[in-house]
Amino acid sequence: MTEIISLAATMAFAVTAVLAVKKDKDIDLVGATILGLITAVGGGTIRDLILDVPIFWSQDLSYVWVALASSVAAFFSRKLLAGRHVSLLMLYLDGFGVSLFGILATGKVWDLGFGLPVAPVLLAVVTAIGGGLVRDVLAGRTTLLMTPELYATPVLVGCSLFALVLTYLPAYRYAASLICILLIFAGRSAAIHWNLGMPHFLRFVHEKDS
Amino acid sequence: MTEIISLAATMAFAVTAVLAVKKDKDIDLVGATILGLITAVGGGTIRDLILDVPIFWSQDLSYVWVALASSVAAFFSRKLLAGRHVSLLMLYLDGFGVSLFGILATGKVWDLGFGLPVAPVLLAVVTAIGGGLVRDVLAGRTTLLMTPELYATPVLVGCSLFALVLTYLPAYRYAASLICILLIFAGRSAAIHWNLGMPHFLRFVHEKDS
Amino acid sequence: MTEIISLAATMAFAVTAVLAVKKDKDIDLVGATILGLITAVGGGTIRDLILDVPIFWSQDLSYVWVALASSVAAFFSRKLLAGRHVSLLMLYLDGFGVSLFGILATGKVWDLGFGLPVAPVLLAVVTAIGGGLVRDVLAGRTTLLMTPELYATPVLVGCSLFALVLTYLPAYRYAASLICILLIFAGRSAAIHWNLGMPHFLRFVHEKDS
Repeated sequence: MTEIISLAATMAFAVTAVLAVKKDKDIDLVGATILGLITAVGGGTIRDLILDVPIFWSQDLSYVWVALASSVAAFFSRKLLAGRHVSLLMLYLDGFGVSLFGILATGKVWDLGFGLPVAPVLLAVVTAIGGGLVRDVLAGRTTLLMTPELYATPVLVGCSLFALVLTYLPAYRYAASLICILLIFAGRSAAIHWNLGMPHFLRFVHEKDS
Repeated sequence: MTEIISLAATMAFAVTAVLAVKKDKDIDLVGATILGLITAVGGGTIRDLILDVPIFWSQDLSYVWVALASSVAAFFSRKLLAGRHVSLLMLYLDGFGVSLFGILATGKVWDLGFGLPVAPVLLAVVTAIGGGLVRDVLAGRTTLLMTPELYATPVLVGCSLFALVLTYLPAYRYAASLICILLIFAGRSAAIHWNLGMPHFLRFVHEKDS
Repeated sequence: MTEIISLAATMAFAVTAVLAVKKDKDIDLVGATILGLITAVGGGTIRDLILDVPIFWSQDLSYVWVALASSVAAFFSRKLLAGRHVSLLMLYLDGFGVSLFGILATGKVWDLGFGLPVAPVLLAVVTAIGGGLVRDVLAGRTTLLMTPELYATPVLVGCSLFALVLTYLPAYRYAASLICILLIFAGRSAAIHWNLGMPHFLRFVHEKDS
C-alpha cells in the first residue's frame, strides 16, 4: 500500500516537473525527462548518500521506471495536462508526495539511529525538497528557498512533530505518522489554495519595502 | 590504451571548460582551474558516489593531474587556443570523451550489477554530462539541459543500445562497445557540425512560438 | 580547544550566510536557516561523501545545532548585525573559519591516505568553499568562483604548503598547521581589507576590456 502511494507521488513529482518546464527557454524530450527524473528521485538520492546506505531506487527500480514513464507521458500530453484542473490536481498530488516522503524519510533515518534527534528531520526536508531544488538549479530558475511560498516549512513542522512523538511516545508511531502526513498535506494545501507565505516578521521582505 | 585515450578526453573536457570561461564576467586562474577540474572529473565522481565505490580519481591520480595541468595550460595559452580550428578540435575531442566515458561507465555499472538494466544507462549519462552541468551551474550559465543542442541524447541512445547488447548478446560486448562509441561520437559530431537539435515535436519550442 | 574554535567558525559561516540574504528577493526564516546550515556544514559534507567516511556532523551534532541556532539568531537580530563593524567582524571570522577548516581538512584527508599528495589539498578547498558555493547556487547568486575576490586562492596556497610540510617535514606538522592557518587568514584578511583580486595576468578580465 505504501509502495503504491509512493509511486503515485513519484509520478506527481515527475509530471509537475515536466509541466513546469513550459515556461523555460528551449528544452527537448530528453532534457525534460532528466529534469522529471531528478525531481522525482533526487531528494531521496542525496539522503541515501548522506546516510551511506544503498540508494533506494537501485534496490527497487520501479521508482525510476515510473519517473521516466511519467515524464515522457507528461511531455507528450502537455497540452492535455495544461488545463487548470489537471495542473492543480498535480500540485496537490505533489503536496501529498512531499508529506508522505518527508514522514517516511524521518522514520527511515530514525530507525538507522543517524544523528538523533535532529538529522531525521533535516534529511526529511532534504528528501522532500532536494530533488526540486536540483531541478530548479539545473533549469536556471529561482529555487523555492528564495520564494515566500510555504513549501519547506510544513515539512519541517510536521517532521519535527513526528520526531517528538518518536522520542517521547514511540508507541504512537503509526498513528502519529498518519496524522503528521495529513498535517503537512493540510499546510501545503492551504499554501496552494490561498497562496500563503510566512507572516511578515519571519520574512526579509520588510527591509526591501522600506 | 584505454587509459591513454581516457586521459586525452579528460584533457579535452578541462580545456573546453577553461576556454568557455572567456565569455564570463570575471574569473581568475584558480577559478578557471577549479571549473576545469570539476568538468573533467565531476561526472565520474557523482557516478561513483551513487555506486558507493571508491572515487575513480582517488585510485589513479593521473586524471586529476592531467585535468589540473590542462586547465592551467589552457588558461595561459587561451589566446593561442582561441582560433576557430583549435576550439573546434577541442569540441570534437570533448564529443569523443563523452562517447568514451559514457560507454565505459555503462560497462562499469553493468559489471557491478547495479540496478540492471536501467541504472547503467542513467549513470552513463551522469558520467558524461554531470561535470559539465555542475560547471555551468557554478559559472551561472544556462545548462545544456535547457538548450536544444544534441548533447545528452546521443549518449542516451548509444548507451541504451549498448545495454541492449549486454542483455541479449553479451558475447558481442567488445565489438558493441566500439560501435556504440563511434555511434555516439557520430551523433555529437553531426550536432556540432550542423548545429543539430531535436525535431520540433520533441521540443517545447512550439508552444512559445504560438 | 580546536572544537570550540571550529564551532565559532561554524557560527560565523551561518551568520554571514544569513546576513548576505538581505539583498535577495524574498526569503523567510526557514529558507534563510537552510542556507545558513548548508553554508556551515555543506563543504565538509561533500568532503566526507567523497572520502566515504561518516559525515562529520552525524557523529557530533553540535555543529548542526550551532549552525541552526546561529542562523535563527542572525535572522532575528539582522538589523542589529547590519552595522558595518559587526558584519566586518563576521567576514573576518568567516575568513578564520576558512583557514581553520582548510588546514584541518588537509590533515584529516592526509591521515586517511586518500589520494596523496593532491587530494588532501583539493578536498581542503572543497571543505572551505563548498558550502558557500552551494549556498550561492541555491540563492541564485554569482558564485565566488566567478568573482575576482581572493577566496579560494589563499586556501589553495596555504593547504599546498601544509601538504609539502606533511610530505617532506612531517615532524613539523603541528607548527606548520598553525603557521598555515595564519597564512591563509592573513591572505583572506588582506583580500577583505584591500578588496584584493588576482593580478591581471592571472585573470580573464583583459580580454573583455580590449
